[in-house]
Amino acid sequence: MSISEYPDSSFQDACAVSQDLHALFHPSSIALVGIPRGLKPGKVFLMGLLELGFMGPIYPVHPHAREIDGLKAYPSLMAVPDAVDLVIVMSPKQTVWDVLEECAQKKVKIVIVYTSGFSEADSTKGRQDETRMRGIAQKGGFRIVGPNCMGVYSPASRLAPFPFMPKEQGNIAFLTQSGSLMNLFINMCASKKLFFSHAASYGNSCDVDFPELLEWVMADNDARVVCSYCEGITDMQKFIKTLHKTAGIKPLIMWKVGKTNAGKKAAASHTGSLGGEHHLWESLFRQFGIISVTDIEEMLDVVMAFYHLPLKGDGRVAIISGPGGPAVSAADAVEMNGLTLATLSDATVKSLEELLPETGTAKTNPVDVGLGASFDLRYYLDSLDILSNDPNVDAIIILGGGVTDELNVQYVEGLIQAGEHSDKHIISIAYPGFIKDEKVLSSLYANGIPVYSTPERALRAYAAMMRFYRFQKRLEMR
Amino acid sequence: MSISEYPDSSFQDACAVSQDLHALFHPSSIALVGIPRGLKPGKVFLMGLLELGFMGPIYPVHPHAREIDGLKAYPSLMAVPDAVDLVIVMSPKQTVWDVLEECAQKKVKIVIVYTSGFSEADSTKGRQDETRMRGIAQKGGFRIVGPNCMGVYSPASRLAPFPFMPKEQGNIAFLTQSGSLMNLFINMCASKKLFFSHAASYGNSCDVDFPELLEWVMADNDARVVCSYCEGITDMQKFIKTLHKTAGIKPLIMWKVGKTNAGKKAAASHTGSLGGEHHLWESLFRQFGIISVTDIEEMLDVVMAFYHLPLKGDGRVAIISGPGGPAVSAADAVEMNGLTLATLSDATVKSLEELLPETGTAKTNPVDVGLGASFDLRYYLDSLDILSNDPNVDAIIILGGGVTDELNVQYVEGLIQAGEHSDKHIISIAYPGFIKDEKVLSSLYANGIPVYSTPERALRAYAAMMRFYRFQKRLEMR
Repeated sequence: MSISEYPDSSFQDACAVSQDLHALFHPSSIALVGIPRGLKPGKVFLMGLLELGFMGPIYPVHPHAREIDGLKAYPSLMAVPDAVDLVIVMSPKQTVWDVLEECAQKKVKIVIVYTSGFSEADSTKGRQDETRMRGIAQKGGFRIVGPNCMGVYSPASRLAPFPFMPKEQGNIAFLTQSGSLMNLFINMCASKKLFFSHAASYGNSCDVDFPELLEWVMADNDARVVCSYCEGITDMQKFIKTLHKTAGIKPLIMWKVGKTNAGKKAAASHTGSLGGEHHLWESLFRQFGIISVTDIEEMLDVVMAFYHLPLKGDGRVAIISGPGGPAVSAADAVEMNGLTLATLSDATVKSLEELLPETGTAKTNPVDVGLGASFDLRYYLDSLDILSNDPNVDAIIILGGGVTDELNVQYVEGLIQAGEHSDKHIISIAYPGFIKDEKVLSSLYANGIPVYSTPERALRAYAAMMRFYRFQKRLEMR
Repeated sequence: MSISEYPDSSFQDACAVSQDLHALFHPSSIALVGIPRGLKPGKVFLMGLLELGFMGPIYPVHPHAREIDGLKAYPSLMAVPDAVDLVIVMSPKQTVWDVLEECAQKKVKIVIVYTSGFSEADSTKGRQDETRMRGIAQKGGFRIVGPNCMGVYSPASRLAPFPFMPKEQGNIAFLTQSGSLMNLFINMCASKKLFFSHAASYGNSCDVDFPELLEWVMADNDARVVCSYCEGITDMQKFIKTLHKTAGIKPLIMWKVGKTNAGKKAAASHTGSLGGEHHLWESLFRQFGIISVTDIEEMLDVVMAFYHLPLKGDGRVAIISGPGGPAVSAADAVEMNGLTLATLSDATVKSLEELLPETGTAKTNPVDVGLGASFDLRYYLDSLDILSNDPNVDAIIILGGGVTDELNVQYVEGLIQAGEHSDKHIISIAYPGFIKDEKVLSSLYANGIPVYSTPERALRAYAAMMRFYRFQKRLEMR
C-alpha cells in the first residue's frame, strides 16, 4: 500500500514534522556542551564522532579547557564562532537551564540532553522540569531530544553516540528509550551483517517523542523496517493518531516493556515512563499490525527475516533436515505459529524417492534426508533444488551441514546458489552441532539468507513476517 | 522427598525392572552385528566405542571380513567364543530375524536394533514386525532397545554410539526417541560443562520403552535431573503409572513434540509414534510436575539451572544491571514467569545509595549500577556483595562485564567468589555486547554459576526450576 492511499492518513503532517528532525540525523555541525576532559561516561559522544569520522565541525564546550582530544574547546556555546545545528548537553543538571537559554540565543536547530536526574529520579519535580525545558525550546525555536538519553546514530552522517559502532549503512531504523540498548542491539545486528539507516535514543522524551520519531522514520526513504524498545508513551492519543497514519507502511517491531507491575516500576525509575495497561498494548499490536517481541534475541530474529526476505507468498513451509528430531519439532512449530506445512507435489515426492536412501529418511514434508547427508551433501542440496521447483512451497527451512569444514563451505555455497536461482524464501538453521564458524555463516548473511540457531526460532520470526504481510494485504483491500 | 515416602510408590517394581537395564548401560562385552567395513553410517558405533575407550571386548560380526579397524571379526554371533552382554544390530532389515534368534541362542542380555524400516516406514506391517521382535526377545530371555535407534551413551562404561562424545561424567540423564538429538544435545551441553550420567535413544521402542527407562533413571543414583525428547508414548497407561511412582523424585524436563497435526505426521514417519492429544499432555505436565520445554535451547537453559543451583528459597529475585533497558525487561520477566521481584531491605538500599553514583543509576530492584560500572567493577561486585546479605533476596541475576578483557576476567572472578560466599542463587547474564569469550565464561560454568544470553531466558529457566521445587514441597506436605 502506498502512503497516499491510506484512508486515515494525513501524511503531509508527518512530512512537515520531519523537517525538524532532519537536523537531528544529519547535522552540519555539533557542539558538545559539558564534555569531560578525562575518560568519563560523557566522553563516549566525542569518541563516537571521532571514531566514525563525523565530517562537519565539532565544538567541545568546557568552562576551562582550551583543547580536548586535539579539538579546540570553547568556554561557552556563545563563544563558538560559527552556526551550530546540533548541541549535545552533558553538563551537570543545574547548568542545563543556562545552556538551553544559550541554545535559543545561538539559534541551534536541535538539542540532545544526555544529562539525567529528571522525571526518572523524581516524577513530580522531574515532570515540571521537563515541561519547563520544552517551554524554553518552543520559545527558542529549537527541539529537544531527551533528557536522560544518548541521542542519535546516523551512519550516513558519520554520527554515533558510542565508539565502535558500525560504519555500514542499512535499512533498519531503531527507536529506543534506552541508550545502551541502542549500542548493544546495533552491534549485535552488525555481527550478523544487519545494518541501520538511523537510530535514536529518546530517554524521558520531554519534547521529541516516540510518535514523532516514528512518523519520521516511516516517511524516511532509507528505512525499510522499524524496531522499537519502548518503556512507555507520554501522549497516548498522539501515538494512536500516528499509528493510524503509519500502520502497514513499514513493519514496526516493538519490544514493549513495563508490562507488569514490577516492570512498570523499573521503567518509571529508568526513564520516568508510565508503562500503560498490558491488554491495551495487546490490542494496539493487533489493530495496527505491530509485531510484538519480548527480548533482544527475538527482536533480532524478526528483523533478520524482514531484512533478507521479500514480502510475498502464502507461508507454505517445507523443511529439510538431516537429524529427524528437530524436523518433527519444526513441523509442530510451523502449525503452532499459524503457518502451513506445505503438501509436496507428487513430482517432488517422486524425485525425493529417487534421490534419498530407502530407510532412515522421509520423502514427505518434513523431508528427512538422513544422517548420511552430512557425508554426501547432494542429499541436502539436491533436495533443496527439488523443493525449489515445487509450486506448493513458499519457504524452505534447511537444517544441516557437512562433517568437515570443507563440506560446510560447500554446503553454504550450495545454499547461496539455490537462493540466487529460487523464488522461494530460503532460511538456514545453524543447529547446535552443525556449522559453528561465524566466517562460514557470514557468507550466508552477506548473500541475503537468514540464519537461525533453531527451526523453532526461525519459524517464530518467519510467521511474524508473514502476519505483517497479511495485515498489509488486508489494509490494501479496504 | 525420599522415594520410600512417596504415597503411590511401589519402587521395588522399578528396581526389579532396572536389573534388566543394567547390562544396557554397563555391558561387559559388546558385539556389533552387521558393522560395515567402510565409512558408512553404521560405523559410528565402533568409532564411538574405540574413541571413548570401551574397556570390555568388542566383537565385530561381518559375513566376510576377518578384521575391521584392527579388531578380529566373526562371521556370525554364534562364532564369537565368549559370552556377549550387549548386541548392536545394524545389519539389513531382512537379516534381523536370524540375528535375534542367534541372540537367544547366545543368551545375550540386551539387544540394540539400529536397523530401521519398521513402524516408521509402514505403520501396520511395521507394528506387526515389532510385536514379532518383542516375542522373540521374551522367549529368548533378552530385551530389545529400538528398532530404529542409536542405543545408549554411558560415559562411566566408556560407551558411546557416536565418536567425539564427552568422556566426562555428570548427573543428567537423557532419554530420547531421536538418536541424533542425543549426540547434538549432549555435545551442546558439554560446551557449557554440563555432563551426563546416561542417555538412551529408544526409537520405535518395541520392547524397552520410555516408561521403563524413566523408572530406571529415576532410581539410578548417578542421575539428578532427567531430560527427555519424546515423540509419542505407545502404552499411555504404563506411562501414567510410572509417573505416579516417580513424580517429584527428580526433575523431569520434557521436550514433547508431535503436538500438532503437522508434528504428529512427522513423528509417525520418524519413529512410528502416535503424538497424542496436546491438552492431555498439558494436564500430565501439571499433574506430575513435569517441566515442559519447546526446543533444544530451552531444554539446555532449564537443565543448566537444575545442574548448578540447589533447590531452595522462595524465588525472590534481585537484578543487577549496567544497561538500564534489559533491567526493565528483566523485571517484567520476573513477574511474567510467576516469580517475585524482591523488595530490598532498607539497609540494602542505604548501602546502594552510598555506593552508586547519584544519577544514571537506580538503588531499588532492579538495581541499575549505571554504565560507569563497566569501567569501575566495584559498582557491580560491591552491589552483588550488598544484595548477597539481604535476607529478602533468594536469587541475584547479574548482567554486565568490563570494557577490557582484563576487566572481564576480574568480573568473572568476582562472581565466582561471591558464589562461594553467598547462600543465594547467583545467575550470570552474558548479554550481547558484554563477555563473549567462551574461555572466560567457562570458568563460571566450572564454578557452578549458570550463564544465560538474556535475563528473559534465565528467568524462564529459573522459574521452571522453582515451580518444580514448589511441586516437590506440595507432594511432601500430602
